[in-house]
Amino acid sequence: MPSRKPRPGEVTVELPATYDAGIYFIGRIRTPWDRREDCPKNSGESQAVCTIEVDARYAEALRDIATVSHLIVLYFMDEAPRDILVQAPNHYKKPHGAFALRSPARPNPIAASVVRLLRVDGLRLEVVGLDCRDGTPLLDIKPYFASIDAVPDAIVGWHAAERA
Amino acid sequence: MPSRKPRPGEVTVELPATYDAGIYFIGRIRTPWDRREDCPKNSGESQAVCTIEVDARYAEALRDIATVSHLIVLYFMDEAPRDILVQAPNHYKKPHGAFALRSPARPNPIAASVVRLLRVDGLRLEVVGLDCRDGTPLLDIKPYFASIDAVPDAIVGWHAAERA
Repeated sequence: MPSRKPRPGEVTVELPATYDAGIYFIGRIRTPWDRREDCPKNSGESQAVCTIEVDARYAEALRDIATVSHLIVLYFMDEAPRDILVQAPNHYKKPHGAFALRSPARPNPIAASVVRLLRVDGLRLEVVGLDCRDGTPLLDIKPYFASIDAVPDAIVGWHAAERA
Repeated sequence: MPSRKPRPGEVTVELPATYDAGIYFIGRIRTPWDRREDCPKNSGESQAVCTIEVDARYAEALRDIATVSHLIVLYFMDEAPRDILVQAPNHYKKPHGAFALRSPARPNPIAASVVRLLRVDGLRLEVVGLDCRDGTPLLDIKPYFASIDAVPDAIVGWHAAERA
């Protein structure tokens, strides 16, 4: 597991000795950003076209995907430290809990990003809305249902307060 | 891994012999539904209050969570078969690819649900918007940012066509 030196105000934890379940990498995400430090701070900052490459083994699971306008993409941020519970990202004023942040650093570094699907070409999906490093392992692709996933009036209070 | 007899039109796959990464169960989700077959078909069908119980080990990661109105909850659907790539859910007319469905059956059975946060009481979060079995393992909690997560005009074409 990658780790880094804690910043002032950060809190780390001793993680359990063993995992509780296993996951498969089902493909890779191709992006313009080779290193973590080159990535946009969040997906809203970039309109770059990225490509989701699904392993041939899972080809059949893509049936009907081309009819979907937006996807929820789950991927594994394999370079993130997993033991930071309170984190002080450089671009915020104060430290915050990992579960109140979208930072990659969390016990299970699984990102969930909403993307717009531009085109399907066999095992390759061109999308807009990702902010991860080139080569990031893919975990899942889901259709985005506005009826259950869209909450335009949702509020992140601490975030609004820091920007005010 | 749980499995079940394939239905007509379904396609299964031989999964890899080993996992690529491990995940921790960081808590449990308490719901009114003891068995999979009692659960609502999707979270939009229920206004039941459910409780997310976070393990004491991760308490610090909850800092500032009470200021967030909606969360994205990731959890592990440990009773779902992982080898079904094309699936024929009873309530749809035709089989569809796992990546075009929100079914628990998928290579990595990780659900992503948007919930409304009602109350935080120590390690317990009362929420509305879950549809999983009581005792489901928790993987992650994230703040929902309307700016990147809300897409009210998203379309799932195959789904709209089947309802037309």
